[in-house]
Amino acid sequence: MTTARAFAATSATDPLSATTIQRRSVGPNDVRIDIAYSGICHSDINTVRGAWGPINYPLVPGHEIVGTVAEIGSDVTLHKVGDRVGVGCTVNSCRECANCLAGQQNYCLNGATYTYGSVDRDGSTTQGGYATEIVVVEDFVVRVPENIPFDAAAPLLCAGVTTYAPLAHWNAGPGKKVAIVGMGGLGHLAVKIAHAMGAEVTVLSQTLSKKDDGIRLGADHYYATSDESTFANLAGTFDLILNTISAPVDMWSYLSLLAFDGTMVNLGAPAEPMPVSVFALMGNRRSLTATAIGSIAETQEMLDFCAEHGIASEIELINASEVNTAYDRVLKSDVRYRFVIDAATI
Amino acid sequence: MTTARAFAATSATDPLSATTIQRRSVGPNDVRIDIAYSGICHSDINTVRGAWGPINYPLVPGHEIVGTVAEIGSDVTLHKVGDRVGVGCTVNSCRECANCLAGQQNYCLNGATYTYGSVDRDGSTTQGGYATEIVVVEDFVVRVPENIPFDAAAPLLCAGVTTYAPLAHWNAGPGKKVAIVGMGGLGHLAVKIAHAMGAEVTVLSQTLSKKDDGIRLGADHYYATSDESTFANLAGTFDLILNTISAPVDMWSYLSLLAFDGTMVNLGAPAEPMPVSVFALMGNRRSLTATAIGSIAETQEMLDFCAEHGIASEIELINASEVNTAYDRVLKSDVRYRFVIDAATI
Repeated sequence: MTTARAFAATSATDPLSATTIQRRSVGPNDVRIDIAYSGICHSDINTVRGAWGPINYPLVPGHEIVGTVAEIGSDVTLHKVGDRVGVGCTVNSCRECANCLAGQQNYCLNGATYTYGSVDRDGSTTQGGYATEIVVVEDFVVRVPENIPFDAAAPLLCAGVTTYAPLAHWNAGPGKKVAIVGMGGLGHLAVKIAHAMGAEVTVLSQTLSKKDDGIRLGADHYYATSDESTFANLAGTFDLILNTISAPVDMWSYLSLLAFDGTMVNLGAPAEPMPVSVFALMGNRRSLTATAIGSIAETQEMLDFCAEHGIASEIELINASEVNTAYDRVLKSDVRYRFVIDAATI
Repeated sequence: MTTARAFAATSATDPLSATTIQRRSVGPNDVRIDIAYSGICHSDINTVRGAWGPINYPLVPGHEIVGTVAEIGSDVTLHKVGDRVGVGCTVNSCRECANCLAGQQNYCLNGATYTYGSVDRDGSTTQGGYATEIVVVEDFVVRVPENIPFDAAAPLLCAGVTTYAPLAHWNAGPGKKVAIVGMGGLGHLAVKIAHAMGAEVTVLSQTLSKKDDGIRLGADHYYATSDESTFANLAGTFDLILNTISAPVDMWSYLSLLAFDGTMVNLGAPAEPMPVSVFALMGNRRSLTATAIGSIAETQEMLDFCAEHGIASEIELINASEVNTAYDRVLKSDVRYRFVIDAATI
């Protein structure tokens, strides 16, 4: 066991605070990582605030982790000491179900082991990336190419793959019209990635306040959803819509934007079901679906794609002591576009 | 103009009754068909009873039409006098929109011309198949292969293609597990077609009352949805679910039956939106969609497929005077599995 410094939530309401946690000894297949940077994802806040159900405290959040391999187990072949690596939302899965066997660990039918707040194999609760180090089984660790700035690479581990996986699966590319709903942590990366894939990219954001950024990052068009004419003007336009908004939306309005055989993919999930009209789906043989993060293979593919296309997150780098202020700002959508904690300050 | 005998609805509440209607003179591209048989579709009843909105009376319903070509226009090349032909739900479309140009007339963005109750190009209201003859532009007329019994072919023109098109589009075939929800006019044909395509077919019906029929027609499994264990036992099973029920269903229960990347296709549409949980879609990257009938090319493809595989509808052949009794029985789901009117009795 090694001791790591960390920032943990101690209740659903108290500020996060400095603490120390124990990391397991490096097993034969494990990799110990010195964490360099850790992104702040909106779901960190939902989790530690109990919005998604009761949890055990203290809990160290963080699933956008990059760092350097400090130690490897005796059987490790995928990584070596000194490698630049990353860890995303999952640190293990059952490895036996149909989805795991198909390489879709993120859809593990027995429940993937999430990077924080999950029950680990030894019965302990997993603790995440707001820490100075972490120990992870080697095949849930990915390589971070040299030419992606390390701090700006961190958010790729969740926000990057969550948007890359559906864009790749539904073939965003030349000739495809793709709409990105929401211009936040996920949305701004979706714009960059879809643009790099060659798609014609439209941002649909509540207002035009981030329009200049959107165009700069690769959007071809940018419209405000608060303007009702947007939905009338764009009816039947898009082959693919990525909805990055976790709050409920009016499904009829958004589905009506899809072209023939178009697909709307939800990346966030409101707690309550949303009313969906079958007529809205039937009109143009439209599909409604949702995805959860991406697989380990897709995560590596995304990192390699981002390296090739010079893509990283737009970030605000902070010290660990600023994490509570950052949480407040995330809740107000006041971040362009992802906070990243410098682990040296933990 | 020619005069045809017909059975028409004269109000939303009165019984259908015998009348005569005028059919247009055969234009250069038209085909005049002596109708032999006309199926009774549940949507005939919804339409004439005003359930889908106000309509102009009198109205002759019927969009499952087979007959013999009696006359052709000067420019007709697709059909000749004496040919066995069929007409389904659409008799024209705009021919200019993206969907029409892609051969998807049933998704015409300017609104297809439906076989009855639509505004035709000359401003008149189209009148359907409960009649002795009909005049239709040649490329909305399909060939009915000789070896399909003529009376049992009629329901293929709507119920057949409505189930065939999604089965073909989502690749029902060997190795695919397909569930058919509802064992009625559409459902029983879906069972036959999916079985002939080589899929493993499961019927999900409210009760087991039609189980023997289902197995005889090609189902491998048959379960009652009134038995709650059905949903628990079959969770994550199906690659494709065809929902033939027009009434609202509990979407969470049905979506949970889908395997990874599975698709649920709604063929009927309840008037009210249904609550859909994004979590149910996200769990296994499931898709929810809906289709409307099928294209003219798909209709021909379906008829050729049915001829090759010896598929036709299970029918109860009736005289025109029995149409009101038949309507009452359809509303009670008391038909195995489609009423067909012998046009000689009109």
